Amino acid sequence: MFNVKSLKEVKEIILQNGDNYPLKKELISTLDAKGYILSKDVFAKEDVPLFNRSTVDGYACKYDDIKLASESTPAILKISGEVEMGKEYTGELGRNQAIIVPTGGQIPIGADVAVMIENTETLNETVLIYKKASKFENIILKAADINVGDRIIGRGHCITSRSIGALMSQNVKEIECYSPLSATILSTGDELVGDKESLLIGEVRDINTYTIKETLLNHNFTIDKTKIIRDDYEEYKQEVLTAFETSDIVFASGASSVGDKDYTINVLEDINAEVLVHGLNIKPGKPTIIAKYNNKFFIGLPGHPTSAYIVLSLLINTILESIYKLDKKEDFYIEGVLQSNVHNNSGRMYIQLVKYENGIVHPIHYKSSMIHNLTVANGYIIIPSTSEGIYQGETVKVYKLGD
Amino acid sequence: MFNVKSLKEVKEIILQNGDNYPLKKELISTLDAKGYILSKDVFAKEDVPLFNRSTVDGYACKYDDIKLASESTPAILKISGEVEMGKEYTGELGRNQAIIVPTGGQIPIGADVAVMIENTETLNETVLIYKKASKFENIILKAADINVGDRIIGRGHCITSRSIGALMSQNVKEIECYSPLSATILSTGDELVGDKESLLIGEVRDINTYTIKETLLNHNFTIDKTKIIRDDYEEYKQEVLTAFETSDIVFASGASSVGDKDYTINVLEDINAEVLVHGLNIKPGKPTIIAKYNNKFFIGLPGHPTSAYIVLSLLINTILESIYKLDKKEDFYIEGVLQSNVHNNSGRMYIQLVKYENGIVHPIHYKSSMIHNLTVANGYIIIPSTSEGIYQGETVKVYKLGD
Repeated sequence: MFNVKSLKEVKEIILQNGDNYPLKKELISTLDAKGYILSKDVFAKEDVPLFNRSTVDGYACKYDDIKLASESTPAILKISGEVEMGKEYTGELGRNQAIIVPTGGQIPIGADVAVMIENTETLNETVLIYKKASKFENIILKAADINVGDRIIGRGHCITSRSIGALMSQNVKEIECYSPLSATILSTGDELVGDKESLLIGEVRDINTYTIKETLLNHNFTIDKTKIIRDDYEEYKQEVLTAFETSDIVFASGASSVGDKDYTINVLEDINAEVLVHGLNIKPGKPTIIAKYNNKFFIGLPGHPTSAYIVLSLLINTILESIYKLDKKEDFYIEGVLQSNVHNNSGRMYIQLVKYENGIVHPIHYKSSMIHNLTVANGYIIIPSTSEGIYQGETVKVYKLGD
Repeated sequence: MFNVKSLKEVKEIILQNGDNYPLKKELISTLDAKGYILSKDVFAKEDVPLFNRSTVDGYACKYDDIKLASESTPAILKISGEVEMGKEYTGELGRNQAIIVPTGGQIPIGADVAVMIENTETLNETVLIYKKASKFENIILKAADINVGDRIIGRGHCITSRSIGALMSQNVKEIECYSPLSATILSTGDELVGDKESLLIGEVRDINTYTIKETLLNHNFTIDKTKIIRDDYEEYKQEVLTAFETSDIVFASGASSVGDKDYTINVLEDINAEVLVHGLNIKPGKPTIIAKYNNKFFIGLPGHPTSAYIVLSLLINTILESIYKLDKKEDFYIEGVLQSNVHNNSGRMYIQLVKYENGIVHPIHYKSSMIHNLTVANGYIIIPSTSEGIYQGETVKVYKLGD
């Protein structure tokens, strides 16, 4: 019998059981690290900026020389040089002098203010400053943004395009990351066929191996092995044991319900795995199993392709949060108007795949073909277990599905 | 001078100028196609299901034999066989017979209804049917989901985990997709330094090449070339011409404003490119240029790394929609409470990078370090040009940033 738990309870259980996960670490070239998770903090190697920098096109001056400047009594300074972009200016600014400086250019030694060109006028080799400025105005001081040794990115950060740019701008070319989690993916069912040119009556092509594998690849997993398993208890048990030896996490689909041939639960008990969840109170997705063996997760998904995909999509971020101790990843959504009624007489939380288009939310019914479900849907809506449905015309939140 | 246009206007202009883009096509293995865009419709190769299938564990029967069955007067049928999962059942069901069938198993020839095991009782070699069922009840008929020749996925679909599963379940192992767009990425500035062990005073490390490249890779581009260009008109012009020869689209950052050294616009006019946009009415991001040359886009981004990243993020989907003629990609968001005031005295649409965390939206101020901006932000909020800001405590929509 199932002992169903709510999605929230199941997520809690997953979060409580990812301690002491056998994680490995490796040095990764920053340029290859997108999707990797930092295994330790990264500290700044260089001050940013590396030198006092002007934020304006204008003149580097001494504050004392221009502090009384005004429209009627301009400060008159001798132009003693020009800073070139990208080059160090080695001279020093003297009293009653000014040095031409471009936006982003170095503020020379001796200068403590930059005056915008708009507030000046040149006259041969002198410049008239018509407006006073405060000390350090229009200057970003050396290290104002980042000091050498500052923590710039923390452990648990998942590397993005933005972080690659930031790290490279700090000359951090290698980072220590967690090694990708390795997975074994098992699909069970006597009717399932993998790569075969033409089907015989009775046979059904496997979908779950592909959707599970590709979803995991989106989360930077490596795949050790995928296998279709006949409904054979001993073979299944052996594959599960092997998978736990070679992989960090084992995903299976099918045989996860409570019928005669649903021997996943028996195999797990047989090998003394700790069954944490058997039954998820959502529709579709009830035949879900979460177990732990040698501190590794076993994720047993339903056999129906749409159900398996939905359950994996709902749980994958929580699994990673638990294993890597990450901050909660948010579920982004878009609001739209439901185009037809969605009923929920299941008494469970109901997950409805939808296609969002121009503000309209089209439910894609579970009974329509799996191909249709999987190719047309770009999001899902959630109907709580306590609700009997949502009427056409109501505004609903459509949550994003992964790529 | 700028001739600024709103974000909406700029997107319209991009959408109107992507016709006759020089696109190539290629056959891609379905398993390698994630992120590719289908260049033609895909049609079904197999009926789904391939055979009449039971949706229950029970008995395949003839409707005429059980149509009067009830609790008090059960139909009594002889069990004449059993369907095995994954195997064809070659026998035929005769009058007053029943054949055992598992969920998902084939409905044998001669049967037109499946009765759930719960409504039956076995007695030696007979089965008692206690409840009538309608014709074809609990049967998915051959091809009910998909007929050979049905269009299963349309041109313009971007391949996801789900579509790979669906295509493989149709034995579609290769698909015709558009070849990835190739890009040249130019960064301009005398101060910019690429790969160099230690910086000299005056030098600044390039960030834009990395954030632009990685964002494009997320959208399945290939990168032909990246180059940092000194502030040298002739060199820049030559690089732009070369880029238009080798690449499908040219991205540049810096030199896109209206000052002395902002010669991008002059180079484009010099080579007779059609300048579509010079000035985007957002902050940050005003120095943005969109041009067209030989039916290819030139995208000129601001030099400031945060600005360049924001503008590219705001426009990249529209660029792809225009080139490939795709449906509009939606911007997903999450709502949260603003943790501090955000002012907008720019008169422009203001894009504020934020970190969303547990329902709280933390603005990351543009003036903070670029590293901080780029690594901490996980979204952005939009303040319309007509608004002077948003107060702390207000609920705002946080839009998702790309990975």
